[in-house]
Amino acid sequence: MREREKPAESGRTADIPGGGKEQGQKNMDGQKNIMDYETVALDEREPAVVIIDQTRLPGRTELISLKSAKEIWDAIYLLKVRGAPAIGVAAAFGIYVLSEKIRTEDYDAFLAEFQKQKAYLDSARPTAVNLSWALNRMERVVLKNAGRSVTEIRVLLKREAVAIRDEDVRVCRAIGEYGLALVRPGDGILTHCNAGKLATVKYGTATAPIYLGQERGYHFRVFADETRPLLQGARLTAYELQSSGVDVTLICDNMSAAVMKNGWVNAVFVGCDRVAANGDAANKIGTSVVAAVAACYGVPVYVCAPTSTIDMDTATGGEIHIEQRPAEEVTEMWYRERMAPEGVKVFNPAFDVTDHTLIAGIVTEYGVARAPYTASLKEIFRKKAAERPD
Amino acid sequence: MREREKPAESGRTADIPGGGKEQGQKNMDGQKNIMDYETVALDEREPAVVIIDQTRLPGRTELISLKSAKEIWDAIYLLKVRGAPAIGVAAAFGIYVLSEKIRTEDYDAFLAEFQKQKAYLDSARPTAVNLSWALNRMERVVLKNAGRSVTEIRVLLKREAVAIRDEDVRVCRAIGEYGLALVRPGDGILTHCNAGKLATVKYGTATAPIYLGQERGYHFRVFADETRPLLQGARLTAYELQSSGVDVTLICDNMSAAVMKNGWVNAVFVGCDRVAANGDAANKIGTSVVAAVAACYGVPVYVCAPTSTIDMDTATGGEIHIEQRPAEEVTEMWYRERMAPEGVKVFNPAFDVTDHTLIAGIVTEYGVARAPYTASLKEIFRKKAAERPD
Repeated sequence: MREREKPAESGRTADIPGGGKEQGQKNMDGQKNIMDYETVALDEREPAVVIIDQTRLPGRTELISLKSAKEIWDAIYLLKVRGAPAIGVAAAFGIYVLSEKIRTEDYDAFLAEFQKQKAYLDSARPTAVNLSWALNRMERVVLKNAGRSVTEIRVLLKREAVAIRDEDVRVCRAIGEYGLALVRPGDGILTHCNAGKLATVKYGTATAPIYLGQERGYHFRVFADETRPLLQGARLTAYELQSSGVDVTLICDNMSAAVMKNGWVNAVFVGCDRVAANGDAANKIGTSVVAAVAACYGVPVYVCAPTSTIDMDTATGGEIHIEQRPAEEVTEMWYRERMAPEGVKVFNPAFDVTDHTLIAGIVTEYGVARAPYTASLKEIFRKKAAERPD
Repeated sequence: MREREKPAESGRTADIPGGGKEQGQKNMDGQKNIMDYETVALDEREPAVVIIDQTRLPGRTELISLKSAKEIWDAIYLLKVRGAPAIGVAAAFGIYVLSEKIRTEDYDAFLAEFQKQKAYLDSARPTAVNLSWALNRMERVVLKNAGRSVTEIRVLLKREAVAIRDEDVRVCRAIGEYGLALVRPGDGILTHCNAGKLATVKYGTATAPIYLGQERGYHFRVFADETRPLLQGARLTAYELQSSGVDVTLICDNMSAAVMKNGWVNAVFVGCDRVAANGDAANKIGTSVVAAVAACYGVPVYVCAPTSTIDMDTATGGEIHIEQRPAEEVTEMWYRERMAPEGVKVFNPAFDVTDHTLIAGIVTEYGVARAPYTASLKEIFRKKAAERPD
């Protein structure tokens, strides 16, 4: 490979040279394609919550069935299920499954036991907003229907949990459609971290345009940043894209300039943790590095953001608190032995904020917001209010 | 920590928040400061080549003494000594040490044995240009002095090896002086990979301004990129700076935007593998990511380049061949278990080329070249020719 002299315009064709093996095999256990499963599903007969155990990835694809409160709590606490939307759906299905085991037809006794189980599940990851959001939504079904029989309430709980799941699928799919309109068949797409199917029920957010394109024969070439220090890109994104038959190439976080200079990337799609009213977007650490590199090579960066992650009460990214994580994640985690000198200082922020000036568009389930974001994001919420007047 | 809304101008003061332990302790074995040693030294009494065994870093600081041809060959082959200048000096000292063991006073017999040993050492790392460069320079001493006694030739060989060592120290120190003039006391400096003392005899190239500043109480705050996949920044740069008492903070490669946005970085110093005549610079993969991020935040990038690495016969970076390395370095190396799905494609270039438009200055031992580089690099070589008319 020879690199070009000048930052190249993004081109459409380029061979990716060696350094790796062929891709596109079946996933490791000879099981079905990962897209045949939902990340979180309800087994109605048991009933049970069925999840892909993400702690076994990328080595093994293992479905596990959660029936008891302890099993559900553990799955959330031990990150067997992760990603805000997926956690919410697992909690909704979970509290429904537990409600089927409450052996009483007395409303007050049922409510008391329901709330006990709810508080227990809620304690699995206290900072996961979607966890308490989904559990509160389920609780409202019980509270609103005090006049009905417990048997009827169980039916309504199941319906609400399924609705939460369906909404997640619908939001991701809508983001996918709007995102897909921003790219062309054969394009190169770079993504960072895992805003993928594994973080939601199906499609993911940043990966939704990729999966919809895959269904329609778009033949994207995807580059997945490994995403230090937690390696979500290597462990999860590369895994889910490969096992879905997508042409994916894993790179280290410091290789984005090399692939963009080669003209291999036409668009960057990333997820987000919080978008401010001015369009600044907090996402996994390294997102703003990708955005700066993309700006240098003229590649557009699209932030895929369900409206639930857009916080119009946060004026700018400067107001977003950035969590510092333990030094050991950088110096020791995953390794056979410590890879940095003892006692060295480490700066390990979980997120960074990408300036709105580096973002070409914010892709929501109600369309793509463009600069100036202060106005366009308001318009997105007007559209949402018009479609869902609640 | 709160991040600022806009890409910040580089500031002078900022506290680095937690996430790590205090820095500045003694190195691990309670030995002397690493700056008390040269990375490659000659023990004249044995005689022997004495090196810091870099394969034991950062866990242990261990000096080893190399006396036999096998020991010297192994040290180079097994990367116990690494970095182009350090390898050259080790080879020069090495072939001198071996010449002391050639038990003959007959010139022809001496030459034959010398050349046999030279060919053996040269085979340790065939692609390391400095290895054959240093060995050829030593051989010329033997060939030029055919009229002298073998005893005299041994003295001349020692003198030449010491000259090679002294030149390396002088070049690095000169780069350090020119680099130091580009920054101010208290500045934040970011560096990538290891263009440090451990790659040379003393001072390093990108680290030379840091060490000279350290000697003069400049109190720099240094950020060391860990430099995936081989982690030279974590294993070597963080180690050598910490054990020299420099205030160093280790970051992942994807955190450079976060530290620059916080205004913590006033300048970037990196080394290089080859500089083209137009100023394009090939260096460890990720250098051009740092350069793009620095451009975004208005931080100047300085490439520290001994004139031996400037190749005026290479017109642009587009002509520089980029080596692809094995996928396993990204997916498996250092880890307890494989961190990416089996069979996934990996793009793993060893280097990237930083466009000259992203470089604020090229720091050589004859001064700092500024854009337009096509002219300024020629001027550097004119100055070199004037000072060293050979």
